[in-house]
Amino acid sequence: MALHLLKRPTSEVQALAQALIDAKAQIGHCSICFNLSAAPVCDICRAPSRDQHTLCVVADARDVIALEKTREYKGKYHVLGGLISPMDGIGPEQLHIGPLVHRVHKEGIKEVIIAISPSIEGDTTTLYIAQLLKSLTRVTRIAFGLPMGGDLEYADEVTLARAIEGRREIS
Amino acid sequence: MALHLLKRPTSEVQALAQALIDAKAQIGHCSICFNLSAAPVCDICRAPSRDQHTLCVVADARDVIALEKTREYKGKYHVLGGLISPMDGIGPEQLHIGPLVHRVHKEGIKEVIIAISPSIEGDTTTLYIAQLLKSLTRVTRIAFGLPMGGDLEYADEVTLARAIEGRREIS
Repeated sequence: MALHLLKRPTSEVQALAQALIDAKAQIGHCSICFNLSAAPVCDICRAPSRDQHTLCVVADARDVIALEKTREYKGKYHVLGGLISPMDGIGPEQLHIGPLVHRVHKEGIKEVIIAISPSIEGDTTTLYIAQLLKSLTRVTRIAFGLPMGGDLEYADEVTLARAIEGRREIS
Repeated sequence: MALHLLKRPTSEVQALAQALIDAKAQIGHCSICFNLSAAPVCDICRAPSRDQHTLCVVADARDVIALEKTREYKGKYHVLGGLISPMDGIGPEQLHIGPLVHRVHKEGIKEVIIAISPSIEGDTTTLYIAQLLKSLTRVTRIAFGLPMGGDLEYADEVTLARAIEGRREIS
């Protein structure tokens, strides 16, 4: 990138530098869902067309982008800002879990979908949140199994075992 | 492989050649489940320790090997020998679907788990079998979603959409 920039005119490099400074100055976190946003409340939280009673809990703002690309999910989000990881000294109080519980109460949430990748930290965080919320609302987790286009023969054993365990009745 | 063999002693190459001839002569299909077998009935079909009332339907004998590696599945198998594919002129009658229906009746099968990869042919075959069997027994399909170790951010949109659609309540 540096070598590419050295070949470009100075004005262009100055414009890029200014854009970076502006982005850093203007982009912050949505005060409701902690997604990246230039405004105090992000576009998704403000959209009246979205399902107001479903929350999707993700670890990071990047996961919101990935889920939005599917165009399948119509509810709102809540970004935790990381995962519980005692090895790295990250406990539940460093994440946006308190505000999540508050939102579930206040917004009358009917379903919390936990969309966190499968890993030790991910599973710990999922179980922690599920324990906190399951007396208040329905708590679900995204499915794990064979990816699309995936071949049974090339799937790893843990994925296959999860796919069998998570089998669903065909209706 | 050819270059490697040229370096080995003649006796070893002759032994390998004989082993290949023997394998071709002796390995056939199990008369019950159509898995590869040296005997008329394969080891899995004969094993009394396996769950006699659960059948896992797979496209190919290689899928049996993949599923056995998980050590999670304890039932028996049924190998279709391919997938329904009108483009390649393969209809249901070319596959071992008739014997499958017969087995479900005769063996008093309580659950048929369809473990077929997601693709147009795979989905067609799954729906065809489900329609045939669902009045006779419980028919399930393995889960599709995020693979283990998979990151939300790098998952393709269809996999993510399936993972949301297939979400399960956390108990």
